[in-house]
Amino acid sequence: MLKATVIVRYKEGVDDPEGKSIKHSLELLNFKDISEVKVSKYYEIYLKKTLEEGKKEIEEIIKKLLVNPVIHDYEVRVEEI
Amino acid sequence: MLKATVIVRYKEGVDDPEGKSIKHSLELLNFKDISEVKVSKYYEIYLKKTLEEGKKEIEEIIKKLLVNPVIHDYEVRVEEI
Repeated sequence: MLKATVIVRYKEGVDDPEGKSIKHSLELLNFKDISEVKVSKYYEIYLKKTLEEGKKEIEEIIKKLLVNPVIHDYEVRVEEI
Repeated sequence: MLKATVIVRYKEGVDDPEGKSIKHSLELLNFKDISEVKVSKYYEIYLKKTLEEGKKEIEEIIKKLLVNPVIHDYEVRVEEI
């Protein structure tokens, strides 16, 4: 069994409305020292493949379903569990 | 400057509709070996505090704004950058 962990972030310069909204809420709650808040998606995908096949499949899945390359960067780690 | 990384997951047994929906879409796209997909939030919070104060403040922020303890577990890491 493989576990793939994929973090999908907004690219630098792309608006992150959820992060901004949390930062604003924190200011209202009197947390004054917050410089920035970024919110990303964290996917854990379990699949039955060999490590080599799995890495290829996860790259396909990321490109077809999880990431919009215009606005997102991603980090991926695939491990045997 | 501190950077806090917080991962907020659904607890075991709590429904994860977005994860299920992605798994279903992957099946429709002919990815047949997927056992499970979990979707979590990944927060990066930058703040100007000492490490000790920052760790305390991040725990407060998590409890007040980021986590519902009935349905969520979380992981947190605070580091100087």
